[in-house]
Amino acid sequence: MEFNVDENEKINEEILIQSMSDDDLQAFRNEFMNLHPYDQAQFYSKLEQVDRIKIYHYLSPDELANFFEVLEIDDSDYKDILAGMEPKYAADMLANMYADNAVDVLNKLDKDQVASYLTIMNKEDAQEIKGLLHYEEYTAGSIMTTEFVAISANQTVRSAMYILKNEAPKAETIYYVYVTDDDGRLVGVISLRDLIISSDDTMITDIMFDRIISISVGADQEDAARQMRDYDLLALPVVDFQNHLLGIITVDDIIDVIDEEASDDYSKLAGVSDMDTMDRNPFSAAKKRLPWLIILLFLGMFTASLIGRFENTLSQVSILAVFIPLIAGMAGNTGTQSLAVAVRGIATGELEEMNKMKLIMREAGTGLITGTICGVLVSVVVYVWKGELFLGFLVGISILASLFVATLAGSLVPLVMHRLKIDPAVASGPFITTMNDITSILIYFGLATLFMSYLVH
Amino acid sequence: MEFNVDENEKINEEILIQSMSDDDLQAFRNEFMNLHPYDQAQFYSKLEQVDRIKIYHYLSPDELANFFEVLEIDDSDYKDILAGMEPKYAADMLANMYADNAVDVLNKLDKDQVASYLTIMNKEDAQEIKGLLHYEEYTAGSIMTTEFVAISANQTVRSAMYILKNEAPKAETIYYVYVTDDDGRLVGVISLRDLIISSDDTMITDIMFDRIISISVGADQEDAARQMRDYDLLALPVVDFQNHLLGIITVDDIIDVIDEEASDDYSKLAGVSDMDTMDRNPFSAAKKRLPWLIILLFLGMFTASLIGRFENTLSQVSILAVFIPLIAGMAGNTGTQSLAVAVRGIATGELEEMNKMKLIMREAGTGLITGTICGVLVSVVVYVWKGELFLGFLVGISILASLFVATLAGSLVPLVMHRLKIDPAVASGPFITTMNDITSILIYFGLATLFMSYLVH
Repeated sequence: MEFNVDENEKINEEILIQSMSDDDLQAFRNEFMNLHPYDQAQFYSKLEQVDRIKIYHYLSPDELANFFEVLEIDDSDYKDILAGMEPKYAADMLANMYADNAVDVLNKLDKDQVASYLTIMNKEDAQEIKGLLHYEEYTAGSIMTTEFVAISANQTVRSAMYILKNEAPKAETIYYVYVTDDDGRLVGVISLRDLIISSDDTMITDIMFDRIISISVGADQEDAARQMRDYDLLALPVVDFQNHLLGIITVDDIIDVIDEEASDDYSKLAGVSDMDTMDRNPFSAAKKRLPWLIILLFLGMFTASLIGRFENTLSQVSILAVFIPLIAGMAGNTGTQSLAVAVRGIATGELEEMNKMKLIMREAGTGLITGTICGVLVSVVVYVWKGELFLGFLVGISILASLFVATLAGSLVPLVMHRLKIDPAVASGPFITTMNDITSILIYFGLATLFMSYLVH
Repeated sequence: MEFNVDENEKINEEILIQSMSDDDLQAFRNEFMNLHPYDQAQFYSKLEQVDRIKIYHYLSPDELANFFEVLEIDDSDYKDILAGMEPKYAADMLANMYADNAVDVLNKLDKDQVASYLTIMNKEDAQEIKGLLHYEEYTAGSIMTTEFVAISANQTVRSAMYILKNEAPKAETIYYVYVTDDDGRLVGVISLRDLIISSDDTMITDIMFDRIISISVGADQEDAARQMRDYDLLALPVVDFQNHLLGIITVDDIIDVIDEEASDDYSKLAGVSDMDTMDRNPFSAAKKRLPWLIILLFLGMFTASLIGRFENTLSQVSILAVFIPLIAGMAGNTGTQSLAVAVRGIATGELEEMNKMKLIMREAGTGLITGTICGVLVSVVVYVWKGELFLGFLVGISILASLFVATLAGSLVPLVMHRLKIDPAVASGPFITTMNDITSILIYFGLATLFMSYLVH
């Protein structure tokens, strides 16, 4: 026996591949069925279609469902994979998955494909899946499962444990048991831990927790994630507006949501529309990045035309051009910093609790401090370098003003967007950077033109 | 009875505050003890020190420990809060917390304060906490707890359930039971679900899972997070190099790790050293941002001095200055995009599985495509706007070359850093942006100086 095996040793791929080429069903199953579903999925995802079809003969639809739920492949590949199975086999597999995961798979298929599988499936399973299919993406409803354990309050721990044992094999989690009234309304929750430590004759109603943390079916999945994180829950009940228990969200799905949303905010800060580009070719990567780049190109042309208006100033004092990237760059950097603080604060919910006015005042103060320090530093350096007092003064004042405006804009823009119910992360880094380029150049050349007489000797 | 209460109604603050000012212990406890620990913590965190001291008389150390573990306050506030308690009370509270959480609190105190609490505490608890205190930050050991349930393999489900019932009240999770040999080495794991659905006389050794997913105590907490996410675990066992079971990491702590790491990557992309600045004043916010800004200021001065070398070129063709922000900005934007893709790929582990050379080739291809398209667009616009064919050509070629170099650099730099075991997120957005400013300006003015004769009419 071997323990604590290294990451790469967890799957003995050679045995699996050898047994497949020998078509040795027993040898394959001996090894494969001992693997964790994640490792089964890892192995399966690396196979060619022809080998996958072999696997369908080795495994029952239920056994396939077990790892199909954690498969990590491109969304577009599901269509072909399902088409490679016998329709009845595919439908059985879908029926054997937890309903929320079956819905995830079905959402990646064509409408007719979905309809045909639902027709083959037994009525009850089909009904359950149909019920989940119509929830909008990114809502609590879209990530919930209907396989939970619900009991009535008016019974003992003994009888509750009896129900639990019966439902355990098909429930997605048995670690929370939900208590509902005759109309299916959620009235309490009890953890399996509390059930286990209570004596058999205790009444459920005496030990259930009735200040339930629940989420409405139409709520944003991010809110569900926040609640589960704050309350350290393993599952969160999902209810309709009349408090009927519709389903539960389990913590493993919430971890995926948190990962997704973090990737999403991150990619928007970087100005990439979709980070999911790891295995694509350069054309699809370029296609995802070009929209932003072209918008920014035209904004940049606008910046250029602004500088063009100061061509007269420039041709008289060409040294002015030297400091353009410095001033615009610094404004862009401070703007991105304060944008990131605000967007992340909104995303984690920290900002909800904080006074918005206080944040704006804080950012204004921060911009003033960083602006003054950087401005003074630059003035001194420029004076020492070029020996021109007024030029140093001009660049310093421009830095001060630009940093102040950029820092303030970086926090104001996402706050205003949040108020207008627009995802503040849309005000991505490159966008704020380019906007701040424009303001800082206006400030710099505006001041230079105004005080031209001091610059020309 | 009221269900599904609104977020704001969960805590009836008025009752709590009224009962505190009346010093009505019973009324306070009636309301407070019915709250979820998270809500208790939310209420407590808003109180002044004088009211907090009142609470210590209302609640036992154990009751305080219950919500103190989920408190969200500034690290620097723990010192004063603990100092506000009777030392014996504070030590009792720490002893009643899960060991990993007690360690979290102790890590925020002075060394003498820690030593004094450990002296007052009973020996067993103190020993447990001391054992955890020496693990380095960000390792699996630093976030694990020692309150797990371990049994031996050679017994029935019935006797295992008996042990579990006894240990349930003090274990951090009872949903996985770990099977160890006589030397405390991890040999198997069994979920409570499997225990519950198995018949009482089944032997543990027959139903335990022996291809255990575990993590080494010195491993990075990010690796622990990745494993728990991939394998959908509620708890992950932590072992030493001889596979002795030392502790477990629970999913709620892993969610915090995922959140932290995401914030961390995000703030580095934005060039803020620490995002945890929500409630600070402008001076501390400025202090956190200034280091980056000053580094970037000097890099910017370097860029300025580079342009200064081309002052001769500039004074002859002042129109050249107009396009500086456009070219530098576009290079910065593409660099940030490809940096973000690479950093995120490394963070999520996706890149481990992918051929690095393939990523670099993909990025080179992407840079060539986006560069060509943007370059052609710019050439046309500049030609139409200024009527100068060669100027348009020059700006277009510069954009093409800059975008190609910047895209490539954005992926090369983090990959090289990752290889050198430096956190690739350190190559933050503003840094890459400034580096790309410099190369793009060299390209632009280099080409302009080379082909000066075509530009001067």
